[in-house]
Amino acid sequence: KKKYKIAVLPGDGIGPEIIKEAYKIISVIKKKKYINLQTKEYDVGGIAIDKYNIALPEHTLIGCQNSDAILFGSVGGPKWNHLKLEKKPEISSLLSLRKFFNLFINLRPVKLHKKLLHFSPLKTNIIKKGFDILFIRELTGGIYFGVPKGRNELDPNNICAFDTAIYNTYEITRIAQFAFQQARKRKKKLVSIDKSNVLESSKLWREVVTKISYTFPEVQIEHLYVDNAAMQLIQNPSQFDVILCPNLFGDILTDESASLIGSLGMLPSASLNQKNFGLYEPAGGSAPDLKGKNLANPIAQILSLAMLFKYSLGFLDISEAIEHAVITVLKQGHHTYDISDKINFISTDMMGTKISENL
Amino acid sequence: KKKYKIAVLPGDGIGPEIIKEAYKIISVIKKKKYINLQTKEYDVGGIAIDKYNIALPEHTLIGCQNSDAILFGSVGGPKWNHLKLEKKPEISSLLSLRKFFNLFINLRPVKLHKKLLHFSPLKTNIIKKGFDILFIRELTGGIYFGVPKGRNELDPNNICAFDTAIYNTYEITRIAQFAFQQARKRKKKLVSIDKSNVLESSKLWREVVTKISYTFPEVQIEHLYVDNAAMQLIQNPSQFDVILCPNLFGDILTDESASLIGSLGMLPSASLNQKNFGLYEPAGGSAPDLKGKNLANPIAQILSLAMLFKYSLGFLDISEAIEHAVITVLKQGHHTYDISDKINFISTDMMGTKISENL
Ligand SMILES: CC(C)[C@H](C(=O)O)[C@@H](O)C(=O)O
Ligand SMILES: CC(C)[C@H](C(=O)O)[C@@H](O)C(=O)O
Repeated sequence: KKKYKIAVLPGDGIGPEIIKEAYKIISVIKKKKYINLQTKEYDVGGIAIDKYNIALPEHTLIGCQNSDAILFGSVGGPKWNHLKLEKKPEISSLLSLRKFFNLFINLRPVKLHKKLLHFSPLKTNIIKKGFDILFIRELTGGIYFGVPKGRNELDPNNICAFDTAIYNTYEITRIAQFAFQQARKRKKKLVSIDKSNVLESSKLWREVVTKISYTFPEVQIEHLYVDNAAMQLIQNPSQFDVILCPNLFGDILTDESASLIGSLGMLPSASLNQKNFGLYEPAGGSAPDLKGKNLANPIAQILSLAMLFKYSLGFLDISEAIEHAVITVLKQGHHTYDISDKINFISTDMMGTKISENL
Repeated sequence: KKKYKIAVLPGDGIGPEIIKEAYKIISVIKKKKYINLQTKEYDVGGIAIDKYNIALPEHTLIGCQNSDAILFGSVGGPKWNHLKLEKKPEISSLLSLRKFFNLFINLRPVKLHKKLLHFSPLKTNIIKKGFDILFIRELTGGIYFGVPKGRNELDPNNICAFDTAIYNTYEITRIAQFAFQQARKRKKKLVSIDKSNVLESSKLWREVVTKISYTFPEVQIEHLYVDNAAMQLIQNPSQFDVILCPNLFGDILTDESASLIGSLGMLPSASLNQKNFGLYEPAGGSAPDLKGKNLANPIAQILSLAMLFKYSLGFLDISEAIEHAVITVLKQGHHTYDISDKINFISTDMMGTKISENL
């Protein structure tokens, strides 16, 4: 019987707490589906810095290499904020993993179910039918990794710091092809984001996406400037289906969109390479202020696990079952702190239990 | 009697139409206030390209130099989209003017009056009292102007395009000082935006802003990552008072915020240098699809004129009177197309007339 191995990297802040809830889901699936699922935990981020003086220890990296997918909690926190940029947990573990495994595809589905409109800060008449946007963010290029990146301190009174936003045809082509393929399976509408009226890297982005669009004549393509998109997402989110973004713009627009569904605590994400290997993490970060309070929302982590089953292990049915369980519990009126009226809410732990019971 | 000279640059798209409405305001002020105001028009943008083959002709630039302020419409449109980046109207006129006059301070006040909550797409319980955010965007640095910027086409099959995001201590210091001064006059709360967990230029930004904050002990400073800010602006805009942004992040967040007040057609902007010389333009762009339809919202242009009176000419009373007239007309229930239910609305022309009548 095929063995599926998941490397679990809880990390810092609320990471360990919400990962615990994901384990509940895994154990139900193991029981019900007789799949040979094996999970193994590894340290990553701040906790690994504390223990081994490095955010991504070798045994963690090897553990990930020997697995079919990575279930990632979150990393970072005030304790490690004084560190140099390249030593910070976010950079030295999360960005390193993205780069090491060549996870250039970042998928962030932002869905507002039509029965859960009350979670959204938007007026109901704007989002009558809810929305279902699939963000596809390029994840290993652009200004995140471009060189040169650094400082010129020749004049100590006027230090100069710089980053390079850079894209090449190859990088844009592969993510654009992926995006068109996804769009073809959905509503056949793709919106590509850039700032091609100002940036050279964006101008190339638009050119290449346009060229790829000719090979997908059945998909309607539209180009939007990032500032315009930031606006349209609020004015009429339902107009969007698949949105393709360069790395930095994807970072900003997906967080913006997360708030349209009520909380970052609901937004899962998958970071994939061309071999379907992936890292699955909630988009919300380590939320140090919530740590240890049993208040964090485990849904983003649980939906990330659902994406893991879909994209890396190929179990679409399990993925959908998990998603369904989440929606059921929400429709029953159970809310964690972040999506509640701050008076009536259930704990992290209870939310995980309820979802696993509904599975 | 002192003579005040305004260079008027209508530009393209809806520019000329909304500038026309600003003229109505100017003529009322001339009559009522006996100020010696002189306006003179110059071509800029696409129309100047068509006429003189250059977006910012010398006589336009000289006209601006000989004036106390520039009232700018908008530039660009599909007709000039095929041009090379550096020839496009936006770059070769608007960005050139910003750089030429060293307009490093961009002010974008985003206000939602508590009696106009219905304009906002946000649920009323989120914005009970409206909000009043002053965005201060750095406008002559960062990735907009950093070099190198260009392309490497050595391998025609894999072209590489790049931009440089760059800031130095001097540039950050002067805009931060301006921001703290503004914050001190308001609620003494400043939020500074960066992406210092990923970008070197942002790390320096945060360091310098922190250093300047020690010289303004009465102002409370907070630093937010741009992705987090994109989220918070929707979840709770009223928490903000003054927001300081690097160039690109300011571009995105101000447009996002514009949609929170109902329409980009309501958002004025002032771009200033250290001598109070300034360019005043609606933040909305040339909106080519609305051109010539008498549908555009002239309010952003009229409020930009109000800012001109305040910041470049020093007539605070006139500025406030214009703002007051705008709010009065809106409260009376008159809406242009963009902020209407698309059934009951008044024309560009009518809106301008009503505001001037209420002045
Ligand atoms: C933690 C940070 C480096 C990261 C990013 O900017 O990519 C995060 O915001 C995200 O969106 O995954
Ligand atoms: C037209 C464009 C170059 C400009 C910018 O990006 O600055 C505009 O979006 C703005 O915000 O003023």
